[in-house]
Amino acid sequence: MRQAGRYLPEYREVRSRVTFEELCRSPELCAEVTLQPIDRFGLDAAILFSDILVVFDAIGVPVAFNPAPKVASPVRTASEVDGLRWGRAADHLDYVYQAVRACKRALAGRVPLIGFCGAPMTTASYMIEGGGSREFEHTKAMAFTEPALFGRMLERITTLLVEYLAGQVAAGADALQIFESWGAAFAPDDYRIHVLPHLRRLVDECKPLGVPIILFVRGNASLLAQAAELDADVVGVDWSIGMADAIEVVGPRRVVQGNLDPLTLLGPPELVTAKAEAIVAAGRRARAHIFNLGHGISRHTDPAMVQHLVDVVHGA
Amino acid sequence: MRQAGRYLPEYREVRSRVTFEELCRSPELCAEVTLQPIDRFGLDAAILFSDILVVFDAIGVPVAFNPAPKVASPVRTASEVDGLRWGRAADHLDYVYQAVRACKRALAGRVPLIGFCGAPMTTASYMIEGGGSREFEHTKAMAFTEPALFGRMLERITTLLVEYLAGQVAAGADALQIFESWGAAFAPDDYRIHVLPHLRRLVDECKPLGVPIILFVRGNASLLAQAAELDADVVGVDWSIGMADAIEVVGPRRVVQGNLDPLTLLGPPELVTAKAEAIVAAGRRARAHIFNLGHGISRHTDPAMVQHLVDVVHGA
Repeated sequence: MRQAGRYLPEYREVRSRVTFEELCRSPELCAEVTLQPIDRFGLDAAILFSDILVVFDAIGVPVAFNPAPKVASPVRTASEVDGLRWGRAADHLDYVYQAVRACKRALAGRVPLIGFCGAPMTTASYMIEGGGSREFEHTKAMAFTEPALFGRMLERITTLLVEYLAGQVAAGADALQIFESWGAAFAPDDYRIHVLPHLRRLVDECKPLGVPIILFVRGNASLLAQAAELDADVVGVDWSIGMADAIEVVGPRRVVQGNLDPLTLLGPPELVTAKAEAIVAAGRRARAHIFNLGHGISRHTDPAMVQHLVDVVHGA
Repeated sequence: MRQAGRYLPEYREVRSRVTFEELCRSPELCAEVTLQPIDRFGLDAAILFSDILVVFDAIGVPVAFNPAPKVASPVRTASEVDGLRWGRAADHLDYVYQAVRACKRALAGRVPLIGFCGAPMTTASYMIEGGGSREFEHTKAMAFTEPALFGRMLERITTLLVEYLAGQVAAGADALQIFESWGAAFAPDDYRIHVLPHLRRLVDECKPLGVPIILFVRGNASLLAQAAELDADVVGVDWSIGMADAIEVVGPRRVVQGNLDPLTLLGPPELVTAKAEAIVAAGRRARAHIFNLGHGISRHTDPAMVQHLVDVVHGA
């Protein structure tokens, strides 16, 4: 998950000076906010500060953040899909690669840096819907009525994402996380038909990059089994399923990541302690376990509670 | 699920004359729109047209629909909870019981009528959040930081819901459906601690009413096992899990209801046919299966596709 954010006063200070878009496009500021939680909490890895939708820049799809992402010209027809700037698109994301380099310089080997991207369907959905969505009506209508067009769109996005992740690794990313934030938009059978093949290709084509790949499919425990079929090194687990049950699903030979409900951090410290220790205990049944939140952190979180969580996990 | 709605021109015609609140408070208009899909499609049961939030009327919590529900004065503190009009609250919902009677008169025995309510936590969440929510931060913060207060609130809501459902049965409802629309807000362990006991009490105290109870817990297949622990006659299944897998979870001795993704109806008729037939086939492994959508119907649905679905299911 994104580690920096509005719950940190030092992040809000940076954001008081620049817009979210300016922040994402400034390698030095990205590095500054990427390191804020590392400096503050003593975390074991840093995740690049960026946004999954910067790839829209690369293909000529304008997106605004106010703060929800908004795509003024949704992409839904064959001519709209084919008219995008697909050729060598990842070359237009040099500011992200520069941000990776700036992070690596600033980290100076203290902890590894995780690069990331959105999964093909999650990424596509913002283009098709014109922003975030609750029901994903346009995305699913496109998959159901024009499966070949939907497939071509995801195919092209996947190619872009492979190049984009390769660029992050070339710039120094030590691991990669793929965020399928909205996979639960599709019923399991439909996910397998329309979405999983592209995600599989993304994982398979990123394996030769030689860094660990973390695959996080969020929002429907029924999709965890499909995520576990892919060749990612780590399976991320959100908080919709208990860690012990998740390990049953993915098998004891997988490395898992997760899975504390981030809103637990709004509760008392004793609750945070108990839940974190229970997750650590359950995680011991897996081959290895990277403790993490099971979704993004709430902006209402007290940073002191995050420190408490880090201390509990490090002491467990 | 609600059968009437904006996808039907005859419903939009009614709504062009009255607000949503006026419609919910008019027994005759409720009966009119309740019967619209029955007259049009030849469905096998009718579900009362109403809203789960009419119970807020009874306890003196104003709610507006524009169209999303909005509670101007959220209920979060002990004094706010205790200050509501809990005593004999269900007596204030006579217009709903009148709507049930009007539906029964209009149906004249053609098909059974299903009454309904929201589950305790789903109902409470709108009061606590002040409307719909994505993260349910206030609801969960209340459960985590003040579990006794959260429990007292759900306890009181449950008492109201038992009386409310009894009123619907006394007025003629032939079956009852309990909608846990937002149970997935809680991780499974938290759901079991903070939510399930109240849902269990609601089911147990409604059993003596002598009509079948359908329990629908939506949004997280991990909660299906908990739903199946309760003594409801029918377990509703949303579309986040395949019907065959759902029957594995709830066991072959349960009656199941569901579970077509309603956005399938935006696809071509062949897709609707194939998916409906697959669900019917999978449902044969259960003790009995009530075919239904796995969530509410989209307003972009072509009524002709609903008719196609009804015909496919009746022919399967």
